[in-house]
Amino acid sequence: MMRTEKDSLGTLQIEDSVYYGIQTKRATLNCPVSDEKLNKLPLFIQQMVMIKKSASIANNQIGVLSKEICDAICMACDEIINEEIYDQFPVDLFQGAGGTSFNMNINEVIANRANEILTGNKGYEKVHPNNHVNLGQSTNDVLPSAMNMAFYHYFQELSSVLKNLEDVLKKKSEEFQHVVKLGRTCLQDAVPITLGQEFSGYRSFIQRQIEEIKITREKCLPLILGGTAIGTELGTYQGYLENVYKNLREISDIPVEKKENFFDGFQNTDTYVQFSSTLKSLATGLSKMANDFRIMSSGPRAGFGEIKIPAVQPGSSIMPGKVNPVMPEMMIQICYQVYGNDYGITIAADKGELDINVWVTYMLKNLTESFDLLINGIELFSEKCVSKIEANNEICQQYAEESLANSTIISAKFGYESATEVSKEAYKRDMTIQDIVVEKGLLNEKQAKDLLNPIKLADPSQNVSLVEINKKNR
Amino acid sequence: MMRTEKDSLGTLQIEDSVYYGIQTKRATLNCPVSDEKLNKLPLFIQQMVMIKKSASIANNQIGVLSKEICDAICMACDEIINEEIYDQFPVDLFQGAGGTSFNMNINEVIANRANEILTGNKGYEKVHPNNHVNLGQSTNDVLPSAMNMAFYHYFQELSSVLKNLEDVLKKKSEEFQHVVKLGRTCLQDAVPITLGQEFSGYRSFIQRQIEEIKITREKCLPLILGGTAIGTELGTYQGYLENVYKNLREISDIPVEKKENFFDGFQNTDTYVQFSSTLKSLATGLSKMANDFRIMSSGPRAGFGEIKIPAVQPGSSIMPGKVNPVMPEMMIQICYQVYGNDYGITIAADKGELDINVWVTYMLKNLTESFDLLINGIELFSEKCVSKIEANNEICQQYAEESLANSTIISAKFGYESATEVSKEAYKRDMTIQDIVVEKGLLNEKQAKDLLNPIKLADPSQNVSLVEINKKNR
Amino acid sequence: MMRTEKDSLGTLQIEDSVYYGIQTKRATLNCPVSDEKLNKLPLFIQQMVMIKKSASIANNQIGVLSKEICDAICMACDEIINEEIYDQFPVDLFQGAGGTSFNMNINEVIANRANEILTGNKGYEKVHPNNHVNLGQSTNDVLPSAMNMAFYHYFQELSSVLKNLEDVLKKKSEEFQHVVKLGRTCLQDAVPITLGQEFSGYRSFIQRQIEEIKITREKCLPLILGGTAIGTELGTYQGYLENVYKNLREISDIPVEKKENFFDGFQNTDTYVQFSSTLKSLATGLSKMANDFRIMSSGPRAGFGEIKIPAVQPGSSIMPGKVNPVMPEMMIQICYQVYGNDYGITIAADKGELDINVWVTYMLKNLTESFDLLINGIELFSEKCVSKIEANNEICQQYAEESLANSTIISAKFGYESATEVSKEAYKRDMTIQDIVVEKGLLNEKQAKDLLNPIKLADPSQNVSLVEINKKNR
Amino acid sequence: MMRTEKDSLGTLQIEDSVYYGIQTKRATLNCPVSDEKLNKLPLFIQQMVMIKKSASIANNQIGVLSKEICDAICMACDEIINEEIYDQFPVDLFQGAGGTSFNMNINEVIANRANEILTGNKGYEKVHPNNHVNLGQSTNDVLPSAMNMAFYHYFQELSSVLKNLEDVLKKKSEEFQHVVKLGRTCLQDAVPITLGQEFSGYRSFIQRQIEEIKITREKCLPLILGGTAIGTELGTYQGYLENVYKNLREISDIPVEKKENFFDGFQNTDTYVQFSSTLKSLATGLSKMANDFRIMSSGPRAGFGEIKIPAVQPGSSIMPGKVNPVMPEMMIQICYQVYGNDYGITIAADKGELDINVWVTYMLKNLTESFDLLINGIELFSEKCVSKIEANNEICQQYAEESLANSTIISAKFGYESATEVSKEAYKRDMTIQDIVVEKGLLNEKQAKDLLNPIKLADPSQNVSLVEINKKNR
Repeated sequence: MMRTEKDSLGTLQIEDSVYYGIQTKRATLNCPVSDEKLNKLPLFIQQMVMIKKSASIANNQIGVLSKEICDAICMACDEIINEEIYDQFPVDLFQGAGGTSFNMNINEVIANRANEILTGNKGYEKVHPNNHVNLGQSTNDVLPSAMNMAFYHYFQELSSVLKNLEDVLKKKSEEFQHVVKLGRTCLQDAVPITLGQEFSGYRSFIQRQIEEIKITREKCLPLILGGTAIGTELGTYQGYLENVYKNLREISDIPVEKKENFFDGFQNTDTYVQFSSTLKSLATGLSKMANDFRIMSSGPRAGFGEIKIPAVQPGSSIMPGKVNPVMPEMMIQICYQVYGNDYGITIAADKGELDINVWVTYMLKNLTESFDLLINGIELFSEKCVSKIEANNEICQQYAEESLANSTIISAKFGYESATEVSKEAYKRDMTIQDIVVEKGLLNEKQAKDLLNPIKLADPSQNVSLVEINKKNR
Repeated sequence: MMRTEKDSLGTLQIEDSVYYGIQTKRATLNCPVSDEKLNKLPLFIQQMVMIKKSASIANNQIGVLSKEICDAICMACDEIINEEIYDQFPVDLFQGAGGTSFNMNINEVIANRANEILTGNKGYEKVHPNNHVNLGQSTNDVLPSAMNMAFYHYFQELSSVLKNLEDVLKKKSEEFQHVVKLGRTCLQDAVPITLGQEFSGYRSFIQRQIEEIKITREKCLPLILGGTAIGTELGTYQGYLENVYKNLREISDIPVEKKENFFDGFQNTDTYVQFSSTLKSLATGLSKMANDFRIMSSGPRAGFGEIKIPAVQPGSSIMPGKVNPVMPEMMIQICYQVYGNDYGITIAADKGELDINVWVTYMLKNLTESFDLLINGIELFSEKCVSKIEANNEICQQYAEESLANSTIISAKFGYESATEVSKEAYKRDMTIQDIVVEKGLLNEKQAKDLLNPIKLADPSQNVSLVEINKKNR
Repeated sequence: MMRTEKDSLGTLQIEDSVYYGIQTKRATLNCPVSDEKLNKLPLFIQQMVMIKKSASIANNQIGVLSKEICDAICMACDEIINEEIYDQFPVDLFQGAGGTSFNMNINEVIANRANEILTGNKGYEKVHPNNHVNLGQSTNDVLPSAMNMAFYHYFQELSSVLKNLEDVLKKKSEEFQHVVKLGRTCLQDAVPITLGQEFSGYRSFIQRQIEEIKITREKCLPLILGGTAIGTELGTYQGYLENVYKNLREISDIPVEKKENFFDGFQNTDTYVQFSSTLKSLATGLSKMANDFRIMSSGPRAGFGEIKIPAVQPGSSIMPGKVNPVMPEMMIQICYQVYGNDYGITIAADKGELDINVWVTYMLKNLTESFDLLINGIELFSEKCVSKIEANNEICQQYAEESLANSTIISAKFGYESATEVSKEAYKRDMTIQDIVVEKGLLNEKQAKDLLNPIKLADPSQNVSLVEINKKNR
Repeated sequence: MMRTEKDSLGTLQIEDSVYYGIQTKRATLNCPVSDEKLNKLPLFIQQMVMIKKSASIANNQIGVLSKEICDAICMACDEIINEEIYDQFPVDLFQGAGGTSFNMNINEVIANRANEILTGNKGYEKVHPNNHVNLGQSTNDVLPSAMNMAFYHYFQELSSVLKNLEDVLKKKSEEFQHVVKLGRTCLQDAVPITLGQEFSGYRSFIQRQIEEIKITREKCLPLILGGTAIGTELGTYQGYLENVYKNLREISDIPVEKKENFFDGFQNTDTYVQFSSTLKSLATGLSKMANDFRIMSSGPRAGFGEIKIPAVQPGSSIMPGKVNPVMPEMMIQICYQVYGNDYGITIAADKGELDINVWVTYMLKNLTESFDLLINGIELFSEKCVSKIEANNEICQQYAEESLANSTIISAKFGYESATEVSKEAYKRDMTIQDIVVEKGLLNEKQAKDLLNPIKLADPSQNVSLVEINKKNR
């Protein structure tokens, strides 16, 4: 069965089983571009619906919306949120006009359902998507407001998976605190370090990111809700502004507030650039960490071989028994995607014009994808990889002992030039620094062993005292 | 009902209704990251399956695969291709290990189906995913080969939608050939041009892109199929190489050939960077064109107002009667996505290491998305926007007549300095160049009208003769 | 005259007039890539030299460096800083190895000068670049520390030019507060706004950026100084760490502090990604603002023509009297460069490995360029463009009155559908909304004029009361 | 001494010693943004001057420029080109208005010098920068034309340094043809390969890039010269077009030709995007190759240690004797810069508007930098690194023998499952594949040694026959 709906361009037949209406239908006919539809953004839809509900109550409170209609709208909103009905939002994420179709899709679903509640039928006999559901609102103010609210939740989720990763890294840094290994700079052998120290670095990175997110997240709170089309509030009624924020705080349980300067909020999208930057900044470190695991686990025989990462699936269709760093590579790919999404957001922000930025929906798409991928990816990476990393103690110890860069402590005692000689000779004759300093008579065997003990060299509290201060030399 | 499958890590229970097997299952458990799964890439799966079929026949031809098994594999392959069965490919597009899971997913589906054909049951009693379906192959050679073949088709499709756009632009450039309007540089009034000339430029751009695509597309043809894991062909049998290419050319109807240097082909992914660059290059011009339509149609009253683009949906939830450039904005967003995808591909190409680039599946994902979006988007943009653009003749003509930059022709006749004076005075007194030159007595009214006729100024064949050569002045 | 210097690879002849030494010389021979040399970074060199001075004093304080040598080093450092001697730093900004050449260039200049102070000759007879000037330090800890300190100053400078721009925008927003004009969304006519409101938005954006910078700048303060090669502090002596920070705070007058987890600080460069993101985020808004000025000043006749931006130079070599938006376009190009630099920084951060990120010098180069360009560009843009923008009052007013989107207020009073009718009819018959509502008898002339007064429509404190609440309709 | 010059905005005092004039002066006062000035682009200036000369001769040929003035202009042009006078071009590379300042700087220098030749004085008494030097031209046609010509030369230079690199790689691939080593996929041990095969891959990559450049370079040839401001040729005189191309071909010795559709050429900059893409595509492979050298030379003891790259400078200020991969890291940084420049070019191309792209000068800056860096960097990289790489034969051989992935050939003989068992057992008991197959009695010692000889496994012509076809198993 079909019903007829009407808008400023004319009429269309709509299947009566669906709740969306004519403008949604037009949008799906105009832009069937991708298979990414509005219904891929449930968190965003939820926030939009909460805004609609808050606005309706506000409009009723100030007397411009009847209790009957308001109640029906609220009931429709609650159904969508509670029953998680997201199959009525077929608008393609690639569309134009700054998301009018998103807003109208939501207005129409609510209006049709509210009407049905009141009259038993869809169609806008009693509840109209523009006159009632959208009353006092414009796409341009509600859409970025809902985006901010969705991102507020996303940041929270991200923090939570990061907290897990931090815990895992803390445990590992403790587990590995006595595993001395070789540090590398420029991929070349450097001085000793413990695997625990390295993991404490990873942990500290994640800790800082959690802090960053906490700060960035606050930027979600000031909304431009109530500014309507371009920040002048035209189309709202006396009293609406205060009420809608009060209602929304209650309904959403997010401490949203009115942005001080609406015009700024409509013109600029730097906040989304910053959100993306926060994610990108996190991604650079995650990708680096994941790649470190790839390098340290390279081998098992002809590589660094310092750690083992768990085998999660066979590594090759042709090389039997091969195991690959599947989880780190998944994590790295996610990070690349986050970078690519950031690129898109940057150009979209740059290309805002005059009174609004028409590409906010594109930023919504990209940010949502970045959040989803990071949240899912970090969780899997923590659980299926990081938490199960094991150290190859012997290889680690051996590399640490053999390093030519242990000459650094010789330099601290005997000067850079003597140490250089020692290092060069050790390299040429394939011997250790320890061997050479003993052979050259610089130190006796005991002294050399003591001075060149990697675990001491790696420990700040011990290595500063390894060389007694020789006042004459300086 | 469940069946048990086994791989090098152990056994897993698999629902017996599905054709994929244990390694696919592991992959879905390891990386449930996004809702983009292998089954989003039907064209790629098709090419993979054709390669599997070609390889099986080749292996049979050289005597290392029995006719029975070969026939069963071929039958299974044909079913997938002909019946377009793509629901058996649940591996997430974000995974690690260079696509081993993609290859194994396909191997397992074919093996299970072939086994079922032979024995009535799934499980690998007679046909094994590694020993038979993957015989003589590695993920590392078949996957990029299938990518190339898929892109070969994509370039063809893209050419075809571009050809339509070109036709539309040609028609429009003819329709608008007498619509004289004002050219702009730096968004400032410049000299006259016809709308037809501008559209001939758009058309020429598209024509050139079609040429570019033709050339770029040839780069899909050399494959690394047969190089197995890293280009050394280890794991193939005598005679395989020649046969597999011959079979594949027949089965796919694409003139594929062996890449001259396999090692290069395994190490490098610059070809995919180039594919992405070709798409990006196209996108810069499409985005520019779409934005021109936005600028030229800005208004309807308080903007350039030179053209009208068709209303496809109401433009605002709050401003009644507003119409937005929905289709151009859709097109532009697609271009941003193409840029972002290119960014991701660039870093992925940069980060190849040693004997293969492990991120090819990420490039596959990004390129496929860019192709799909462009192909769909261009088609919609051509049909629902470009083909229906109308000119506002009067406004165009008026702007062309009023432009102060028409002083250029005065400069050609009387020198830059006199022309500057004329232009400044016209600006100050809000008059036209024509008015001033007459008032100043430089030309009489008829001469001025003739010289400053915008349509003549815009026409190369006329404007070069507008000013007779004044030998004395030069 | 030449002198001979020696390092671990052998000896080289150095012109005795220069203060840099053998390692600097090698670097210039190895990487003569660009014409961007270390001497392009005076602020960075300054901070490096202050660190060297602080370290020498610390080493003397704990008894590992003699007073004589320490004094000579300090004197050499003071000369470089006070006399701004930056011509002794010829190392190319494109080099490898994480900036060892930068550090050694500075060590050598100081050592040679200090030696000259003590002995009358260059050469390292008494003061050695590694043993004395670099004592207790590594490139890997001093270089990022000096970067942070340089950026601390840069953020300060940037704030200061932004403050000027904010003042200019504030003045303009007041000057334009009664200039009512038309808002645009999707480049299409929307509802009225004042030019003052728009400028208040620009101002608010700049205000927020100044706040962002204040917060971001604090991230410069924790240093990894003292961590030496990879964070383990190997090569420092007891007591060094406390002293060097104390000295550096005094000498630099920056409240630097030891970073809590050195390993994190050596491994990660997300802080530089964030610095770049802060600049990029600012740039998106500046570019948007500059482009708004281009759009609003487009014309002078065949464009928006709402504002005039000052002519700073002739706009065309061929079109006499043409004036271009030179300053906004300069500003926009700078922003593109900032984006490009951010791209480079992102990939460089991603590609850190194991215990350090070897690309920090590349980040230094890119960030310094972004800072320099923004600081210079914003100052010029403020002074030569923004501060001299004038409004075209009549055009602004006329556009605001004629807009079809003024139907929004009709919708608020009579509903979306009636308003759509009004709007469509006004469009078709080329009349104003006011004309139509009067003609249709919806309002009498006085009411219509009152309701559709653009300045009231633009004013939030007035427009909410324009429509009395009609309880029956809702 | 000062002279007074005049333009449409008024007069300025210019130091009489300089050849540039008032518009150049204004530009330097308006945009003193960076220390990158027009004089950094000598090749571009040269092409501009050749165009000016060609245009003057053309104008004289058609009778609109006197022989006297034409001769003086030509003499001035020749002086600039032959004496390489590039200090008269102080315009900042960051400016606005699409390069009008670049063109006027060149026009003014030529006009002043030509005037001096004719009259003994600067000032435009006889030769005027606009009326004579710029006659029949606009910034918008000459500037991109000179860009194309400069890039034509740059591509040639790039080809030539790539040819050198190719030769070096060819020699190395021959030198290393018997060095068998281990291949790696996902950084994990894979099957044997020779170092020579790997270098043949690098060589083939460079060969292909040279081919790409040859094709891309042809796109420089079609020029928009003669199109003047926006492609309509307004301001040229009858006969100019044919003559100017003929003259330019002779003077420049480049086979330039008129672009078929001028409007396309003025509107679009996809050609520059493609140039940048070609450079970027090359850069991804160079960066990958350089990074491979870093990985393969990692160590010397605690890394891959398969190759040695020459020490070009001491590697650390604190770790004596350390040697770093300085040259590969320089090469990689250059590639990052090329990527960043490509980003900037992409957004600039996207943001072209209407009849020209005002950001071409920004593309000129970025492309020139990318070319310069690549040309210099590749030359240094080839000479100081690649040509001197040495193999560590024993380590390479040892790794190749020990690899568990040698089980691939066992799989080819005994099936994937048996081979997996062998591989797992070898891993668990730290033995080789060879040991296990003998122990298990699958092969006798001689057979095993023969089958698992790495150099045979790596050789396509041998490995396909290693396993005789076992018809029963299949």
